[in-house]
Amino acid sequence: MTGLGIDAGGTLTKLVAATREGKVLGEAAFPTESGLGPRGFVKNLSAEVRKLERRLGRSVTAAGMAVAGDVDAKAGVIRRWANLESFERFPLRVSVRRALGRPVELHNDANMAAWGAYTVELGRKQSNVAVVTLGTGVGGGAVIDGKLVTGATGSALEFGHTRITSPAGRRCTCGGKGHLEAYAGSYGILGIYRSLSKKKVVSPKDVADAAGRGEAAAKETWRRVGAAMAIGCANLVYILNPDTIVFTGGVSRAGTLFLEPVRRAFKQETFRGPFGHVRLRIARRKGLGALGAAVYALDAVRRA
Amino acid sequence: MTGLGIDAGGTLTKLVAATREGKVLGEAAFPTESGLGPRGFVKNLSAEVRKLERRLGRSVTAAGMAVAGDVDAKAGVIRRWANLESFERFPLRVSVRRALGRPVELHNDANMAAWGAYTVELGRKQSNVAVVTLGTGVGGGAVIDGKLVTGATGSALEFGHTRITSPAGRRCTCGGKGHLEAYAGSYGILGIYRSLSKKKVVSPKDVADAAGRGEAAAKETWRRVGAAMAIGCANLVYILNPDTIVFTGGVSRAGTLFLEPVRRAFKQETFRGPFGHVRLRIARRKGLGALGAAVYALDAVRRA
Repeated sequence: MTGLGIDAGGTLTKLVAATREGKVLGEAAFPTESGLGPRGFVKNLSAEVRKLERRLGRSVTAAGMAVAGDVDAKAGVIRRWANLESFERFPLRVSVRRALGRPVELHNDANMAAWGAYTVELGRKQSNVAVVTLGTGVGGGAVIDGKLVTGATGSALEFGHTRITSPAGRRCTCGGKGHLEAYAGSYGILGIYRSLSKKKVVSPKDVADAAGRGEAAAKETWRRVGAAMAIGCANLVYILNPDTIVFTGGVSRAGTLFLEPVRRAFKQETFRGPFGHVRLRIARRKGLGALGAAVYALDAVRRA
Repeated sequence: MTGLGIDAGGTLTKLVAATREGKVLGEAAFPTESGLGPRGFVKNLSAEVRKLERRLGRSVTAAGMAVAGDVDAKAGVIRRWANLESFERFPLRVSVRRALGRPVELHNDANMAAWGAYTVELGRKQSNVAVVTLGTGVGGGAVIDGKLVTGATGSALEFGHTRITSPAGRRCTCGGKGHLEAYAGSYGILGIYRSLSKKKVVSPKDVADAAGRGEAAAKETWRRVGAAMAIGCANLVYILNPDTIVFTGGVSRAGTLFLEPVRRAFKQETFRGPFGHVRLRIARRKGLGALGAAVYALDAVRRA
């Protein structure tokens, strides 16, 4: 069985063909071309999938799409997608299924990253896994008792919008105040650094490099990011009691800079049961969203 | 099928016999007599159950125990129970099962309240339900996709210990600072009121009555309690995306005093999907923990 993971982004769509164990068999990418609208996208996607299948000499059993938007997985529709508004409310899953002639799943990318973390990163050896995606925004996903958590409206684990400070606090892109993302999303990290240093930097990596050189403002930035992450992650542990929290996404490479404060905070928590048990881990595999979607699609076929 | 719910408290143990639909068939209570230790308790429990069965003219199919402690449900052992330390590490579930000769479940009482809310209060019509128990402490439980959430070590939904303020904040009984319980647990409510009014009151009901009379300190107390609840509950919605949050326990009777601020805050949240969907409800049924345990025990028998 070969699963296809489709990571549909605002500018580029990436494909990964993988086994149920997460072994990558082949990859491809093509421009999303938002101007074509969803129908044009589905047509291009279908052609690219067939091209990949010919190249691999094997056909895809099922496909999973991962989208960084608000997805109604039951209906197979994207409710809100800031990157490509023309896709909102379009019957995407049904369209892709018709075009490919194969079963298709459509989910939020952080949820698919959680499935990738559970199945591929941790080899299904733990049943309770939470994922934190660190990029421009902060997302989340979770697997509980070996099942993907989607929530009543498919919006579970909007972890970046949990509040970690009161009153007020920094403004989140959603308009709320004091949300974790306003501190630990890349725009939050850059905003804190700029307010402290008056310097302009373009990415969290610059701030990480500056901290590596011992620059005070950069070190203070990461201290604040780490303090915010510590509160957010502790709340996640108090609510979900996971075996492992897996961090993934671009900013997760700044690893120890934010993980050490979280580890220190966890050591001080009085509830030793959940905090003594939980492991923190930076994902070793990249592209957990697409990979998780490929595996999830195969798992859905097996369940059916 | 008749389920037995056992609400084992520090001083009194209550029994409720109920159908799988939550219809109460009979009730009983006996002193827990902590001095007898767990073996003596099991002996008394067994005698009381047989007495109740004779009185009802029907025998119990299975029993569920609900305990306000840190329970390892898989092992059937109470890891930590502030009320009765002599029960910690004792093989309680196996002992009760042997004494009764019937299947027995042992769970945290807030988790059983969640099962009671899902099955009895909401008639299994919604699949994603969170429960908040409001008493001396603040507890929580959740049902996701129709399954009880226990977490990796049985400590999921320690909702009262999620942090709702930073930095610092009021001290929780666990030693942590800024936890929800330090504001919304009864000791938190009384502590806030005393610091504002310099008056001594014995229960949150006194503070509710004072607010009803328009007393400024009491009104300000509930404003702060409501603000804390609003942040904690919003975080719960962002993580679990439930259909309904059910509030139960003694303090939940102060209903509108803390629910209105939560409702107002929810209306302001930008993520309309989960916040437009979720319902807030004060439990109509009392004793959801014991009732939930009775139903859970029957459900476990059906699954087996």
